[in-house]
Amino acid sequence: MIYLDYSATTKVSDEVLSSFCKVEQEYIGNANSLHQLGFDAKKLMEKAVSQVAHLLSVKEEEVIFTSSASEANNMVLKGVLAQYKNRGCHIITTKLEHSSILDTCTFLEKQGIEVSYVPVLENGKVDEEMLKKMIRKDTVLVSIHAVNSEVGIVQDISRLALLIHEKNPLTFFHVDGTQAVGKIPVCLENVDLFTFSAHKIYGLKGIACLIKKRNVGLVPLIHGGKSQSEFRSGTPSVSLMVSLAKALRLALDDLFEKQEKVKKLNAILREELLKIDGVTINSPEDATSYILNLSVFPIKPEVMLHALEQEGIYLSTKTACSKDSGDSISLLAMGKPHEICGFSLRISLSYLTTEEEIRTFLKIFQKKIKELNFRK
Amino acid sequence: MIYLDYSATTKVSDEVLSSFCKVEQEYIGNANSLHQLGFDAKKLMEKAVSQVAHLLSVKEEEVIFTSSASEANNMVLKGVLAQYKNRGCHIITTKLEHSSILDTCTFLEKQGIEVSYVPVLENGKVDEEMLKKMIRKDTVLVSIHAVNSEVGIVQDISRLALLIHEKNPLTFFHVDGTQAVGKIPVCLENVDLFTFSAHKIYGLKGIACLIKKRNVGLVPLIHGGKSQSEFRSGTPSVSLMVSLAKALRLALDDLFEKQEKVKKLNAILREELLKIDGVTINSPEDATSYILNLSVFPIKPEVMLHALEQEGIYLSTKTACSKDSGDSISLLAMGKPHEICGFSLRISLSYLTTEEEIRTFLKIFQKKIKELNFRK
Repeated sequence: MIYLDYSATTKVSDEVLSSFCKVEQEYIGNANSLHQLGFDAKKLMEKAVSQVAHLLSVKEEEVIFTSSASEANNMVLKGVLAQYKNRGCHIITTKLEHSSILDTCTFLEKQGIEVSYVPVLENGKVDEEMLKKMIRKDTVLVSIHAVNSEVGIVQDISRLALLIHEKNPLTFFHVDGTQAVGKIPVCLENVDLFTFSAHKIYGLKGIACLIKKRNVGLVPLIHGGKSQSEFRSGTPSVSLMVSLAKALRLALDDLFEKQEKVKKLNAILREELLKIDGVTINSPEDATSYILNLSVFPIKPEVMLHALEQEGIYLSTKTACSKDSGDSISLLAMGKPHEICGFSLRISLSYLTTEEEIRTFLKIFQKKIKELNFRK
Repeated sequence: MIYLDYSATTKVSDEVLSSFCKVEQEYIGNANSLHQLGFDAKKLMEKAVSQVAHLLSVKEEEVIFTSSASEANNMVLKGVLAQYKNRGCHIITTKLEHSSILDTCTFLEKQGIEVSYVPVLENGKVDEEMLKKMIRKDTVLVSIHAVNSEVGIVQDISRLALLIHEKNPLTFFHVDGTQAVGKIPVCLENVDLFTFSAHKIYGLKGIACLIKKRNVGLVPLIHGGKSQSEFRSGTPSVSLMVSLAKALRLALDDLFEKQEKVKKLNAILREELLKIDGVTINSPEDATSYILNLSVFPIKPEVMLHALEQEGIYLSTKTACSKDSGDSISLLAMGKPHEICGFSLRISLSYLTTEEEIRTFLKIFQKKIKELNFRK
């Protein structure tokens, strides 16, 4: 099997799973309980919080565990807008975001929130001049991803943060870091809210994180009794929290070495794919090495996916979470024509990917293109 | 160790944990991915949905996995009220609910929703005459738990369902079944919405379930791309879902035998505790056998908890999720005086509890009462 869909999800690492199991078996109390078993669980939970805070250079009180990045993204958009409704009801985002941002924006628009989509340049980067113009006095929130999940475009988060806060110091900046954490260095210094998920970094599904800086208010999505954070109720799963902290630590270990390895694999892919007739590479040169988006016109991506999976190769047409099967929204936003947007494939890599896997993939991919073109 | 806090949380069963691990290791795809690894994960997810539906005699499309009962309760209250805002903005609930209901109601009141609290009789049962009077044309939802978590009062859900729908066929009935599932038989026939959690039935924390009947509309709490249900986005954790289905199946196995066993333990406790000077039993005779609430005036519950935990005995003062450390809200709602409400302890049992544990507990409890009374 050659798995090239790491941006959709990763297999949990043995170490993470074994931490999870150990906590499940050894810490049986409810972290809210007022006896020693509860205190032990709570202490471990606080250790997980503290690890995450340390790894991301934020304060412990700024770490809020959630069940998914989708939940965290919903918390940010709905919760911040609700908290600051007297300040304004204007959000800015991009058309390149994850569905948990885009769909929530569509929902909020129906509730009377005004959503502006800042255009991106041909290379997928946010048009900074336009962004500056779009930020108003009543702009409560700007939400822009760090790395786009379909094409791998990397936004300059620190630069955007400065630009936003310079234009309106009261506007909060949220960054969906799901495709960035553990792959590129992230600096949260001027970022007000940040979300990411464990299952993209060899952690478990069902646990994610919202970093909410101290100065940001938020109406909770889930009300109830005390829990890990006053902003998110529900009995804490200490084992899931510990597993996220562990996954994050492992993901940040040797970040640059892993990045270098993946860069080399990406370079081989780019070089070889460009030699194939009909292949267009859609990811710009400065995209993350972990994602390579390409189109093979006129082969339908579903057909190619199926052809490849028969050889034990797994990649995707676009992000797994998009609702419809039409053109890639990200490529559309970048102004690409239908021959590109409607025929795109996403290869997503890991530091676990080997050069041998890439070479085998290339060989089979070329063969499949020939076969499928021949059939037409 | 003698654990008598099973209503706060249970230790995961080995079988459930091993199912979880097996799925994590063998199903690595994202259930939303359009290749075989995704389809395999999706198929398994659908099997988990189908099992839960079968076990609770509901339709598959009526099963929605969530991260906690708190999330599910929030989904119901906020989501149903938002969906039917044109029909009315009145909810009825009781003061005996879990904090994820009570706190959400407090939040909703601030949003302009009218919340009425139906009084309970001295035995904790909902005052049916009052409930009938309180249901209005604009009552969108009635939310009443099946079993109260602090005192163990069992409400007659089927009777209440008929009463509610007879008075207003458009009013939806939500039942928080967290303390009921796997302990007493539950019939969801006339219940419109039902919530429960895996970690109370030897499942994992981080996974719970909302049953939402076909005819009920709901604005999602978490918007986004496709997932297990259109009403709840976020990458599905198939392993957590499978683990809940397994925990539910195991919990419903031999339900009556387990119930009989716990009934006997409860009877021993009641008989022996009543012989102790100063002890009042607060759980009515027809409460669930799994919960026994008592007060030992004038010994402060925190002091007793601490004294007991030094002997390796763990129970609780009240529900783990309540926010403040004041009087028991449930006992207050039942009209009990401060000598009862401010001094309550909750013993919660399991079919795993042994008679020997109960006898040892009773011996130590009696000794501690003497010691603590002597110190005064």
